[in-house]
Amino acid sequence: MAEKENKISNAVIKRLPRYYRHLGELIEMGVERISSNELSVRMKVTASQIRQDLNNFGGFGQQGYGYNVKILYMEIAKILGLDKKHSVVIIGAGNLGRAIANYANFEKRGFIIEGIFDINPKLKGSTIRGIEVRNLEEIEDFAKEHAIDIVALTIPKTQAVDVAERLARLGVKAFWNFAHTDLNVPEDVIVESVHLSESLMRISYMLENGSSMD
Amino acid sequence: MAEKENKISNAVIKRLPRYYRHLGELIEMGVERISSNELSVRMKVTASQIRQDLNNFGGFGQQGYGYNVKILYMEIAKILGLDKKHSVVIIGAGNLGRAIANYANFEKRGFIIEGIFDINPKLKGSTIRGIEVRNLEEIEDFAKEHAIDIVALTIPKTQAVDVAERLARLGVKAFWNFAHTDLNVPEDVIVESVHLSESLMRISYMLENGSSMD
Repeated sequence: MAEKENKISNAVIKRLPRYYRHLGELIEMGVERISSNELSVRMKVTASQIRQDLNNFGGFGQQGYGYNVKILYMEIAKILGLDKKHSVVIIGAGNLGRAIANYANFEKRGFIIEGIFDINPKLKGSTIRGIEVRNLEEIEDFAKEHAIDIVALTIPKTQAVDVAERLARLGVKAFWNFAHTDLNVPEDVIVESVHLSESLMRISYMLENGSSMD
Repeated sequence: MAEKENKISNAVIKRLPRYYRHLGELIEMGVERISSNELSVRMKVTASQIRQDLNNFGGFGQQGYGYNVKILYMEIAKILGLDKKHSVVIIGAGNLGRAIANYANFEKRGFIIEGIFDINPKLKGSTIRGIEVRNLEEIEDFAKEHAIDIVALTIPKTQAVDVAERLARLGVKAFWNFAHTDLNVPEDVIVESVHLSESLMRISYMLENGSSMD
């Protein structure tokens, strides 16, 4: 299985969360199977792209039957690692940190918020969705005692770089970086950045130039 | 000028916000010029990639001198449309909407929050950074009276689809979509989606497979 997964191209992997979302919506609607043509209309990609992408995951599509929605959904979940639990720590209990902590769907997909930290001593002891906000000073002790899979950084960029360095040294392997900066961590550490201002700039570019970037 | 811009590939355009960010940081540090090699170390891309990318914008790099940081920064700002003001309306005054409204840097780059709307009547009349929260019912009247460039949707997906359709009909040309769904708007309407759960899934994929997606 691992061997097969390794052959899947990054471009396909990048599209998987979107397949996963659409298949989840189809399950909610009670749809049990779907043809690549129907999925194509729904997802606004070509049917041949869909067939090519999904062929990577073996024989789930059958001539004249289409795809079994639930099986495909579960298979993609497995490839994305959503069949396992991942512990998440949020650094920064501001609006963005709160928004993430309050997003119940993350937990449904196995992302469990284990701790929330903030530099503001006034927030210490308050709770978000029942999770206590701790002082940022406690993060290193916390990291030594808890297995943290993912650290979400929703703090200003100067702090983010420093905190990420410290936590990477303690063995944290993945950062979900909302700070508008690059992180200075070893190459084997995963950094997935969500740069909101860059996203906004893409909109203004498209507004000025009337073109899509896709 | 417009003609020249149109020749720039989407791949280059996608990288521009990142150049813009790094050049801004260099200006803050008082750096006046930089070679492609120095910029390469800083941005962790090859120097030849940088030279290729920046060649698109004319002769800002000079042999033995490098790039004039400020001129390049301003040129990129212009290409990204950051030399103009864009009016932004936020639909959804929850944590995510508040996070966006509170991000002062957006305003510095010309993105002016003109209004915030929410479906919750309890929020009506409250303010975020001095901006009154209005009831979502008022959005259509508001859209008729104000030129809205960008609508940020930080509401649940069922509402987002409906609101986007209504606003697109009123002439809104760009949506910054945080709802975890596709929007059903005409093709010439810009949709820039920030799907946080898809971003999180990419992390879990990389954790399981130990590879980067870049």
